[in-house]
Amino acid sequence: MPYFKAKKLDFSSGRRMEVVLREEEARRYGIRKADVLKIKWKKKSFFAAVNYTNSKVEEGEIGFFREIWQSDKGKEMNSAGIVEVSLIKRPDSIKAIKKKLLGSPLNYKEIKSIIKDISDGFLGDIETTYFVASSFRGNFSDTELYYLTKAMVETGDQLKFKGMVVDKHSIGGLPGNRVTPILVPIIASLGFTIPKTSSRAVTSPAGTSDTLEVFMPVCLETKDIKKVVAQTGGCLVWGGALRIAPADDKIIKVSYPLVMEPYNKMIVSIMAKKVAMGIKYLVIDMPIGRNTKIKNKKAADMIERKMRYIAGKFGIKLKVMASRVIDPAGRGIGPSLEARDILRVLQQKKNRPMDLEKKALKITSALLVLTGKFTEIEAKKASRENLRSLKAWEKIKEIISAQGGNQNIDSEKIKLGSYRHEVKAAKNGRIAMYDNRAIIEFCRILGAPSIKQAGIYLDKVIGNKFKKGETLFTLFADSPDRLDLAKAALKKGHILKIV
Amino acid sequence: MPYFKAKKLDFSSGRRMEVVLREEEARRYGIRKADVLKIKWKKKSFFAAVNYTNSKVEEGEIGFFREIWQSDKGKEMNSAGIVEVSLIKRPDSIKAIKKKLLGSPLNYKEIKSIIKDISDGFLGDIETTYFVASSFRGNFSDTELYYLTKAMVETGDQLKFKGMVVDKHSIGGLPGNRVTPILVPIIASLGFTIPKTSSRAVTSPAGTSDTLEVFMPVCLETKDIKKVVAQTGGCLVWGGALRIAPADDKIIKVSYPLVMEPYNKMIVSIMAKKVAMGIKYLVIDMPIGRNTKIKNKKAADMIERKMRYIAGKFGIKLKVMASRVIDPAGRGIGPSLEARDILRVLQQKKNRPMDLEKKALKITSALLVLTGKFTEIEAKKASRENLRSLKAWEKIKEIISAQGGNQNIDSEKIKLGSYRHEVKAAKNGRIAMYDNRAIIEFCRILGAPSIKQAGIYLDKVIGNKFKKGETLFTLFADSPDRLDLAKAALKKGHILKIV
Repeated sequence: MPYFKAKKLDFSSGRRMEVVLREEEARRYGIRKADVLKIKWKKKSFFAAVNYTNSKVEEGEIGFFREIWQSDKGKEMNSAGIVEVSLIKRPDSIKAIKKKLLGSPLNYKEIKSIIKDISDGFLGDIETTYFVASSFRGNFSDTELYYLTKAMVETGDQLKFKGMVVDKHSIGGLPGNRVTPILVPIIASLGFTIPKTSSRAVTSPAGTSDTLEVFMPVCLETKDIKKVVAQTGGCLVWGGALRIAPADDKIIKVSYPLVMEPYNKMIVSIMAKKVAMGIKYLVIDMPIGRNTKIKNKKAADMIERKMRYIAGKFGIKLKVMASRVIDPAGRGIGPSLEARDILRVLQQKKNRPMDLEKKALKITSALLVLTGKFTEIEAKKASRENLRSLKAWEKIKEIISAQGGNQNIDSEKIKLGSYRHEVKAAKNGRIAMYDNRAIIEFCRILGAPSIKQAGIYLDKVIGNKFKKGETLFTLFADSPDRLDLAKAALKKGHILKIV
Repeated sequence: MPYFKAKKLDFSSGRRMEVVLREEEARRYGIRKADVLKIKWKKKSFFAAVNYTNSKVEEGEIGFFREIWQSDKGKEMNSAGIVEVSLIKRPDSIKAIKKKLLGSPLNYKEIKSIIKDISDGFLGDIETTYFVASSFRGNFSDTELYYLTKAMVETGDQLKFKGMVVDKHSIGGLPGNRVTPILVPIIASLGFTIPKTSSRAVTSPAGTSDTLEVFMPVCLETKDIKKVVAQTGGCLVWGGALRIAPADDKIIKVSYPLVMEPYNKMIVSIMAKKVAMGIKYLVIDMPIGRNTKIKNKKAADMIERKMRYIAGKFGIKLKVMASRVIDPAGRGIGPSLEARDILRVLQQKKNRPMDLEKKALKITSALLVLTGKFTEIEAKKASRENLRSLKAWEKIKEIISAQGGNQNIDSEKIKLGSYRHEVKAAKNGRIAMYDNRAIIEFCRILGAPSIKQAGIYLDKVIGNKFKKGETLFTLFADSPDRLDLAKAALKKGHILKIV
């Protein structure tokens, strides 16, 4: 029953019918974020959801976004006119979160209300946290995971592409593991559609997008992505700027402080993004090991089963490649060094990292087989051939150009940090093992990924023998300070095990 | 293993050994709030908990609070010196929250770690929400509630007073229910110690502190409270400024968006504050009803049982007075109008609200009986007598003076809103019932509690007969606008039922 002075706000909520009140004042009336209000002035009334503000209106005022006062009902509304407000109902999303916290399964309508209110900003960190916490009680059933995926897809942008739309996704955790920029041009050169989105590094020395950015633009809008894919069959873009499954980022944010990424959340996050991108054939690269996200075979099996269930619901053909991994693929770690490795493979230079090429071809072949258009032998031959004949190299240049970049690139022209330090062997020996975690930390000290030219180059890889005085690895930095820091750290930490 | 440039901060954390990093940078290193770091420079090292900042240090810097660089180990530390940081362990509190989320009971050490980190600001809204959410899974046992109470007490200030320390607490929900300012001076005038803290209104038209503030200062610091109580035997202060059970406020904050106050949380919150204030005899006034916090007898019984258990653990003698209530006690609603009612009772004016006096005497007597120093008959007599002989009136003036206020007050000098509207009876009849919820909303429209002079005075109370043309109730406002708003609302809402 409270009354407020109307204030027209000169911007749009971009969402639904929405009004704002000052937080403290709303609280006094027992009005909470996302509550549905009935708003009356003169003989007219309409419904709107409420959000809090601490700046847009003064005490005693209610703010109306443009959607409202440009609507039929709102047209005659005056600023400073008095409106009457009454609370119609608490949001369905809050009711649903409470229900789940108390242990009951949710139906699709309930899950959709939660995901929609999260993505529209009506549920803040605290409410979203209650939702994530609710997954601890009895967890989510397969059906609920499917509902979550569907709701995340539907509350964001959905892209549609022509042709057979394929993709691969790596469940990260390994440095120097840049398969994507090699796989995408091979696949596209074979006539498939592969609209690839990648992420930036969070805790690793370089995400795929950080690396790609060394030699091409990756921040494209949805409409440009459509053009690039229509023209070249593929793209290599940063997914973070798109409105694909937008609720996911907010859920990730509140999961962070608990030092865990629940597997269920990861599954939904991956699958929702693939569904939204219209993917129909999907290979998942899932490294298993102590330093990766997936700790053991049992977890890998569980994840595969659930992904397969969700993929089936959306008509996606899925292949999961789970494998134990101990060493990085590629010799460079850090954006520019990884970019050089990638270009060396695509340009088929003699000094290219063969392990990275091998790994890229393996996953590429698996994806080709999954489409049903290739036998295993044909797939291997075709992907190797398209790399060797430089068709993949031509294709990535085409993509770079379509994305607004410069085709005139070469692996050996990639600029690397000019402050360098070579670590030499103190005696003859053989590389037995790398400490991936130490490699990541040294790259951080050197400044990667913000400093693209920083990183470590592995002159010797696992199994290599070396003589006293030979270079084992090289540090790259863009300032003497950074290099000194890393050299100081070298005295205490080891990045490789020698026998 | 990361390295940072040291920066001495010119303020103290006021807590433990603490350092700050920029949030984004800390996240890149996988360092989370409240993590314990080992910090090394030259040959020295120490442990500190980390917090995030977005302003105190630059990228690449680590900020040290005064506690650290004024400590023995930190004395020789230079600003701009390089320190090495390593992650020693995740905070115990985060581990404990996860454990509870997964359904296991917590021991005292675990609960203490959570409450301490909440009250020290190491656990933010998101982490605190996970903890509150964890109570949904199997809830807290009586033992855990005791641990929670104990931990809340120990992480805040604890006050000790001489004599028999007594208190009463109302579990709110009713307008115009100001028993406290009458009870406190009676009890103090009888030689007991009653260090009373009260709250401000959140959703009601006036909290006890809002009302008291009309005629006395209520914002006192701990040291002044001690003086006032030593001098007069009692005090009437706002509890919000004290560091009593500080974790409680933060837990309340994250409970708000879920539109519920779990009973367990309420029990811990009340008991922790009483224990911290050194209370030994406690009467709980617990109105039961649709518009109050306690909806039914079953809930009341459960709350009483748990409170009794916790009280027993701390050696507190407890009496719970649960009763169904339907009407407000007192005729004024809103800070100034309620203040006038209170002073009328204390000054024993003829026009005093007898229902409020009766209620205050009833609870006062119950508290006296609880101390074991009075039989029921003696208690009734003593409290009535001390009110009638104006001993209570002299006592509250003594307290007002000790708290820095002016003794020269009178019920009829309380300033009320000068814009008034009397609602007259359209025909003869009798008051059957008030709508407490409507009364609260009308007071809000009139501007209470921020506008102290605003409110409603009930000229007729339940059971009163009236003739056509007599005044039923009066609206008070400090501006014609506010009064007009309320008059407009009157056309739609009713605050009383007439037969």
